[in-house]
This record gives sequence, structure tokens and C-alpha cells, in this order.
Amino acid sequence: MTVATTTKVHNYSAGPCILPREVFEKAAEAVLDFEGSGLSILEISHRSKPFEAVMAKAQALVKELLGAPDNYQVVFLGGGASLGFHMVPLNYMKLGGKSAYANTGEWATRAVKESKLVGETIVVASSEDKNFSYIPKGYTIPSDADYFHLTSNNTIFGTQYKHFPQSPVPLICDMSSDIFSRPVKVKDFALIYAGAQKNMGPAGTTVYLFDPERLGQTGRKLSPMLDLKNHGAKESMYNTPPVFAVYVSMLTLEWLKKTGGVAEAEKRNAAKAKLLYDTIDRLPLFKGTTAVEDRSMMNATFVMSDASLEPGFDAMWKEAGISGIRGHRSVGGYRASMYNALPIESVQVLVDVMEEFARKNG
Amino acid sequence: MTVATTTKVHNYSAGPCILPREVFEKAAEAVLDFEGSGLSILEISHRSKPFEAVMAKAQALVKELLGAPDNYQVVFLGGGASLGFHMVPLNYMKLGGKSAYANTGEWATRAVKESKLVGETIVVASSEDKNFSYIPKGYTIPSDADYFHLTSNNTIFGTQYKHFPQSPVPLICDMSSDIFSRPVKVKDFALIYAGAQKNMGPAGTTVYLFDPERLGQTGRKLSPMLDLKNHGAKESMYNTPPVFAVYVSMLTLEWLKKTGGVAEAEKRNAAKAKLLYDTIDRLPLFKGTTAVEDRSMMNATFVMSDASLEPGFDAMWKEAGISGIRGHRSVGGYRASMYNALPIESVQVLVDVMEEFARKNG
Repeated sequence: MTVATTTKVHNYSAGPCILPREVFEKAAEAVLDFEGSGLSILEISHRSKPFEAVMAKAQALVKELLGAPDNYQVVFLGGGASLGFHMVPLNYMKLGGKSAYANTGEWATRAVKESKLVGETIVVASSEDKNFSYIPKGYTIPSDADYFHLTSNNTIFGTQYKHFPQSPVPLICDMSSDIFSRPVKVKDFALIYAGAQKNMGPAGTTVYLFDPERLGQTGRKLSPMLDLKNHGAKESMYNTPPVFAVYVSMLTLEWLKKTGGVAEAEKRNAAKAKLLYDTIDRLPLFKGTTAVEDRSMMNATFVMSDASLEPGFDAMWKEAGISGIRGHRSVGGYRASMYNALPIESVQVLVDVMEEFARKNG
Repeated sequence: MTVATTTKVHNYSAGPCILPREVFEKAAEAVLDFEGSGLSILEISHRSKPFEAVMAKAQALVKELLGAPDNYQVVFLGGGASLGFHMVPLNYMKLGGKSAYANTGEWATRAVKESKLVGETIVVASSEDKNFSYIPKGYTIPSDADYFHLTSNNTIFGTQYKHFPQSPVPLICDMSSDIFSRPVKVKDFALIYAGAQKNMGPAGTTVYLFDPERLGQTGRKLSPMLDLKNHGAKESMYNTPPVFAVYVSMLTLEWLKKTGGVAEAEKRNAAKAKLLYDTIDRLPLFKGTTAVEDRSMMNATFVMSDASLEPGFDAMWKEAGISGIRGHRSVGGYRASMYNALPIESVQVLVDVMEEFARKNG
């Protein structure tokens, strides 16, 4: 078999990343003419009725797709999940209180650092000892912490929680890189937050899904811009929201609903991950970098058993139209990001390249 | 003369607002295929070479168009100018120090409120006594303040500084609603910041143009996400930037450069403003709401001398394809926002409607 040269790009970018083609088409149309209004989505007021409808629909889809309890609120803010790292302790750590974190990678480390700037912060579990190649298990979450924070999927290191721990304190989760990829029990979380630029939309907005009753208990006086309670009360319109990023997120969530929701997405993601991980395990030339039981369905990290073969492998996948699988410098090797919108056909192309390369070099 | 019914929309929205048509066309194309890469601008990595080039070009255009000193830095952040209201005192007010503000409207009031959350804040000038209908003059800026903050243009109330005060302390200006509409002496300001969604681009990013030597002097320990010095050092890539909003801003700034830069924009804006304000002053049916010498070139606010005529006037401008000129609830009446991209032909349509209405009802 010969890998065909193709102009189609198989986009494995870790984020911002592939979104469904039909979303790009609808988004491009709205940039020229939003819903037949004669106006671009980029020039309409965020207070206009049509955009208020977009915002309301995006909020409703987040709750519907994740099966969130009725009282939970959804807001779309600017600033990225990195701003969320700062907002979490501000909104949930009591004055004189403390927070607890699991440190499972680069983004968790940043979240811990932000919490330490706000108050006492205990790292109750970490996989830093083995370059974050596994998800810590068997630790105790202190019952006097104000919350426990974890990172559901670790984009750089390729690990993912398969089960979330039972927690005696409110659970807060950064789901930036696997939200909407599988069902979650939202009611187990006081707050789920996620940068849009993986499974939800383009870079430029961050979604916060939270139980409003858990807020307003810290004794801190917050800037209204950093106050989740305020944004919830103002229905995500306290200030001008990132209109286009919210619109494209709505389109992506509509696509997800149409294609069977998160349960079907999980099946597709599991099939893609199985195809790739089976290939990694079958071919002695390749080696996964994480504990097998903690392998991420979103980001598969692997190295070559003989690094001197990398240039030859790189030339072959590039010729096949594959883009964005070089690993992060913290891990090296390769990272294949397989978000919701990546078709299994693209995974097959990568697998074909790996097999052909192994035949020639095995 | 009869006002022709037309399908073209004359977009007077106060923001998000009209941008050049060619920008919408290029942006739509990039959503489908960014620079012939086969990928959408929405799915490429912010760390990819093509996007790094977009960011660098957008930063360079901001400096070039405004004639900023070489050492000034430009960053594009998420979160809106409202987050800037919080970041300003955090980055410029010393621990135990104080800030000084001019309060000229809704957004200035919000900026003052944010500063008060951070430390001592002196409002040295205000036009609140007359519903913000003028720009205060003849006040003294305390020489022991850490900075003096003003709002160059007041979108809601329709006033604008024609000259900026001499200040014994660093000058900081929120130019959200008139940046790039006229030349400014950047070196007189320690920081200029502006939400994109008027003259620069779509909602979703805020530009900060600053002298880095003025930063890092407060003694405060900041979240890296709220630390301008950090964002400057990381060249606006500390975290994932709002890729698409930066790209569209770059396109808009390219258009501005091509059409003669801010000096030519100022001439066009002056001509549009003169056409409308002359009409307001000529027709007894209409009345400007601000001090004549402080009238904004961006947002012209006016009321009708007989409010019972409003429904008839509303029907007429709607029929002419005019959109978005109802005034903000704080002022009532009308607000015609005439940002850079609004052609004088759209102003002529409004003026024609006003004249015809006056003839029928004068």
C-alpha cells in the first residue's frame, strides 16, 4: 500500500483545533450576512435581539448536552481558562481559607500557582515525579479545604481522568481539553470551566458552568469582572461578550447535538483512540508515553523507540497531509490530538502511515 | 425629494459596529481557508508561524498608525476594556498609593469603581452634575497621584476630549470608542487601551499600548494574567490569544493604512460629524444634548424638541434602511455612531431623512 499524497489536511493541532466543516461554512456565511439581516455577525450589537438569542441558545445547549441541573448557570467570558485559574480561588476560597489541587500537568501547575497568589493552597496529589505521565490515585482530599481542583485531561502529557474522585468538598474542574467529549455528572461539580478552543469553538471565549448557590461565600470583595456571581446574574452580558466566539460555539454545539450528543461523541472518540493506541502498542517502533490506564482519548502522546528515525517518519506523515502531531517540548516525540471534530478517517491516515513506516524500517 | 426605500443597511450601532466591507469579505474567506493553507483561521494553532505573523503585523500596525515610540509595546488580550478597568489600578497604583480619575460617563464611572476596589481613588473632575453632557476643564491633577485616568470619548453621552490635559503624573486613557479615529501623541500616555469593537475590529479583544518602563513599580504581586508587564514580555502569547479577533483587527488596520491612516480618517470623520451636527443645529425639530465644544465625532447624541414626533421619525429612518440610532436609556432620543467605517453616504441618508421629516412636521 502506498500512502496517497493529498491536499486534504488532517488537522491534529492540540488547540486551537479542528472544528466541523459545516461550522466553518455557517460561520463564514454569518461574517458576510448574519441570518439574512444584511449585517455581518461582526457588526451587530451584542444587545440586539438576534444576538441575545444566540447567547441564550449557546447557554441552553451547554446545559442540555451535559445534562446540567436546572439551577446551574452558564456564562461565556473572554480571557481564556488562564484567567479562570485566577478566578477560581477568588470565587471559591474563603478569606483565611485554603484550597486543594491535584497537579497533573502544565495547566494544573499554572492553576496551582494562581491559587497560591490568592491564599493557602495544598497540592494533595501530583504526578510531577514521573513527568506527569499518569493520573494520581489513592489520595485524601482534606475535608477542611474550600474546594478541590482538578484538570480532567492533560493536553500536553496525554493523560485523562477515567473516573473523578469522590470529594468531601466542592469539586472544581478545568475541562478545557475534553469537555463535550464524553458524559459527565455535572451535579458532582460546583464549577466546570473550559477554554472554547478544543471541542467547543474558536479561541476567544471560556465557558463556566456552575451552581450559583456555591458562590458569594468567600468574604472577598471582587472586581465585578472577576465575579462569577455577577456574570451569572447578568446572564453573561455584564460587559460586551466575545460575540463571534460565542456564535461559533453555538454552531459547534448544534452540530454536536445533531450528531448524537456527548454519548455518541464518546463512542466515536473511543473508536479513534483505540485505533491509534492499538497501532502504537502493536508496532515496536512506537511507544506510548503514559500509563496505559490513564491514556487520554483526546491527546495520544507517543515517541519512537529509535529517535534517529524521526525525520523519515516526519517526512512521510507530512506527505500524507497530516498536520500538528509534533509533541510538546515537555514530552518530545508526537502528540495526536483527536478532538470531537476529527474524523476517524484522519486517524486511519495516520495509522496507515505508521504501519507503512514500520514495514520499511521495522 | 423622497427617501428611497433600500435594502442596504446603514449601520449606526454604537458597538460592536460597522467595519469595512472588504474586511468582512477577507475574514469570511479566512474562516473557510486561511491564506491557502487548507485550514480555517479558526482551527490553526496560535503558535503556528502564519498566526505569529498575524500577531506581529497587528502589533506593528497599531504602533505605526498611531506613531508610537519604538519602545512601546502592544498586546491584545481577551476580557474587554472592562477587565482593563481592573488591570489599570493593579498595574499602575502603588501599594498605599492613590489614583486620580476624570469621570465623564458610564465607562469612566465603572473605571473609577474598579480603582476604588484596589486603593485610594480621587475623582478630580466630573461632569455628572449635568448628566455627563460636557468635558470638565480647569481642574488640577494631584502631583502625588500614581496616574491620571481619562476616557477620551464617551459613547453613551456623546462627548469627546478635543485636547488632553497636561498631566504631572502618568496619563492613562481608555480610548475604546475613538482610537484610530484621529492622531494622538502616544508618548504623552503611559498606557492607551481600547476594546476592539469600534474602530479596530470585532468584540473579543482589547488592545493595550504602553511604555513598559512605567510598569512593575507598584510593589503588588499580580496574577500573570492581569500583569501587563508579563503579557508584554511574552509578546501577547502568555496564553492563547483571541486568534480571530486579532486577525480581523489586523485586517481593519491594514484597511485604515491603505485609506490614508488616522490623519485621513480624522478628515473623513470631521466631515461626517459636520454634516450631521450642522443639520441638527439647522433644524429646530432637533437638539444636540451636549456642550457644542465637546461634541464627539464618533457618537452624535440628539433629541427631538417635541418627543411626541419620535414614532413618525422612527418609521421614516427605519424605512431608509438606518439601523441602531435609538439613544441609550441614560440620554434618550437618538445616538448616531459614526465610526471610521461608516461612509459619509450613510450620514447623508440620515440627514436627508431628518430634513424631509422637518419639512413635513416643522
